[in-house]
Amino acid sequence: MFKTIEWTEDGVRMIDQTRLPTSEVYVTCRTYQEVAEAIRSMVIRGAPAIGVAAAMGVALGIKQSRAVSVEELRADFEKIAEMISKTRPTAVNLFWAVKRMRELFESSLNVAPGFSPAGAALKGGATEAEKIAAVKSRLIEEAQRVLAEDIAINEAMGRHGAALIPESATVLTHCNAGALATGGYGTALGVVRAAIAAGKKIDVLADETRPFLQGARLTAWELAKDQIPVTLITDNMAGHFMKLGEIQAVIVGADRIAANGDVANKIGTYTVAVLARENGIPFYVAAPLSTIDLSLSSGEQIPIEERSADEVTHWGGVQTAPADVPARHPAFDVTPHRYVTAIITERGVARAPYADSLKALFAS
Amino acid sequence: MFKTIEWTEDGVRMIDQTRLPTSEVYVTCRTYQEVAEAIRSMVIRGAPAIGVAAAMGVALGIKQSRAVSVEELRADFEKIAEMISKTRPTAVNLFWAVKRMRELFESSLNVAPGFSPAGAALKGGATEAEKIAAVKSRLIEEAQRVLAEDIAINEAMGRHGAALIPESATVLTHCNAGALATGGYGTALGVVRAAIAAGKKIDVLADETRPFLQGARLTAWELAKDQIPVTLITDNMAGHFMKLGEIQAVIVGADRIAANGDVANKIGTYTVAVLARENGIPFYVAAPLSTIDLSLSSGEQIPIEERSADEVTHWGGVQTAPADVPARHPAFDVTPHRYVTAIITERGVARAPYADSLKALFAS
Repeated sequence: MFKTIEWTEDGVRMIDQTRLPTSEVYVTCRTYQEVAEAIRSMVIRGAPAIGVAAAMGVALGIKQSRAVSVEELRADFEKIAEMISKTRPTAVNLFWAVKRMRELFESSLNVAPGFSPAGAALKGGATEAEKIAAVKSRLIEEAQRVLAEDIAINEAMGRHGAALIPESATVLTHCNAGALATGGYGTALGVVRAAIAAGKKIDVLADETRPFLQGARLTAWELAKDQIPVTLITDNMAGHFMKLGEIQAVIVGADRIAANGDVANKIGTYTVAVLARENGIPFYVAAPLSTIDLSLSSGEQIPIEERSADEVTHWGGVQTAPADVPARHPAFDVTPHRYVTAIITERGVARAPYADSLKALFAS
Repeated sequence: MFKTIEWTEDGVRMIDQTRLPTSEVYVTCRTYQEVAEAIRSMVIRGAPAIGVAAAMGVALGIKQSRAVSVEELRADFEKIAEMISKTRPTAVNLFWAVKRMRELFESSLNVAPGFSPAGAALKGGATEAEKIAAVKSRLIEEAQRVLAEDIAINEAMGRHGAALIPESATVLTHCNAGALATGGYGTALGVVRAAIAAGKKIDVLADETRPFLQGARLTAWELAKDQIPVTLITDNMAGHFMKLGEIQAVIVGADRIAANGDVANKIGTYTVAVLARENGIPFYVAAPLSTIDLSLSSGEQIPIEERSADEVTHWGGVQTAPADVPARHPAFDVTPHRYVTAIITERGVARAPYADSLKALFAS
């Protein structure tokens, strides 16, 4: 198999997803700015993978910081965090990862003997240099732990989700919520992998997912690489095959889930959800708890990233529309919770009413 | 403006729709075989335009026939008709045009003095050569009449349809049901043109329409050329904009309509119709009576053309999916009549129950 992202001595190494499926190329981001640019330009994408990249980007920036005091290091942290946080506004995992690293930063200062709260750490037994070294080494460890946990979370999610899939089924998926979208194994495709591991006969129908073609380029590539049967369709064909009875379940990932179960995910997800309900097909969302943002009461509060119109009017350098015609490019949409059959997490499966079931998962 | 298709001394001249939007190139088909190939390879496409091309292809083949007897000419007609009819199985206008030309062929033999039924025409006052000349000239005239009528039909359809559109509206359309899909003016886009001519303020949101991108390449091109405001979106964005309340009506064309009002049209139309109903937006189909096939009781009897998977996995020579991944490519889908708010024809607007209203339009 391949590694979506890993920490190396030289920097953060990623498979370049803009080069797939025709080239399997790896790039090493040697500065946190390069990590931010890789997230922004979608060298790495997918909410959980963005979370891992953000954690590693913060760790890399802090590792390379020349700060000589904790206060300087903290200022560097905020500068790094700000740049990383601005790359993709919809993926909550970005903010989750930065927040986790910030908490670790502060708690790492506790390694000093004689630590007490409220700035007292600066006067503790450890020297500034010792504290800085401790923060650096713990953030680097933590970034790698974020990756390892992400894979373990996906495997747990797969076990919970596999039980929902029939013994023999064609499963439709949209975008890429696979190993490439995560630290590894995948969220939606993790459920597919787990169902197959449990002996079920699963075929995947993959929406190509315009405009960025994550389905054609990434989902088709990683499933073929894993020898999981996959057939590609354009986004506008899914409804036709649902109506013909050729699809038994839909599974997608999520970029952010509100407390009421509304799901922000790749543009086109709402359409798939409406079509699934219209045709009596279950619509499942597989996402780790880090994707669920209990601070938002509904999906209407989720900011929707608007990307460049060029991604709609051009294709691999080929112009597909007249030069002077404007285009819209919302990168995500929000699927209201009433279309969601269940949300699969690493702690179990939540069903409506989500305001209760999601809160219960966090408490469990 | 431009001419989608016209009869010339040298053959059938068409704008090459596979070269749009970057090049405005015209090709002249000098034999009926070239006309058939142009239909098959989508140099010309759109059900009404295919009907015009089929009529002109038959006329061209008959014009060039070396038959020296009416029987030989009839045999040539059947050979031509067979090749033309096999080009695109879903567009009923193809069969309608061939049938119309066949009827004209037979009635043209009546020019002979002393004609009586059942083969007696062969013994009439006119010589075989005179009869052949009469058939040739009348088929050539008829093909041009099919074109002129198509434009007049679209203008009538526009007048009926324009009344359905609000004074100020954003109208979503799928595929290209415009001047390029017809002899001129357009079916769905004819309604838009007529609404604008009636002083209404209309913006068009155009689905790009994968895999062949008729929306991006053709609808965007012809509307921009006509200075009608158009914004391009990918197919999977339409639902998002409907949910946001940014779309007031949907208008599409049709490739074949069954007696019960089920509509076969470009793949993705069913999805748009489901989304429109879910969001309380009217979904209109604009199509001439020649598109309505009363011999089919429902859409389930409409054959759906399956085109090459390469059109899904490649674009403009660029490979977008892994080389070994299979793809599906139904070129059309069927929208059940319950999603159709109204069918706009040249004789007026039909509403449910369509089994009655469509039949009434034919009788009117």
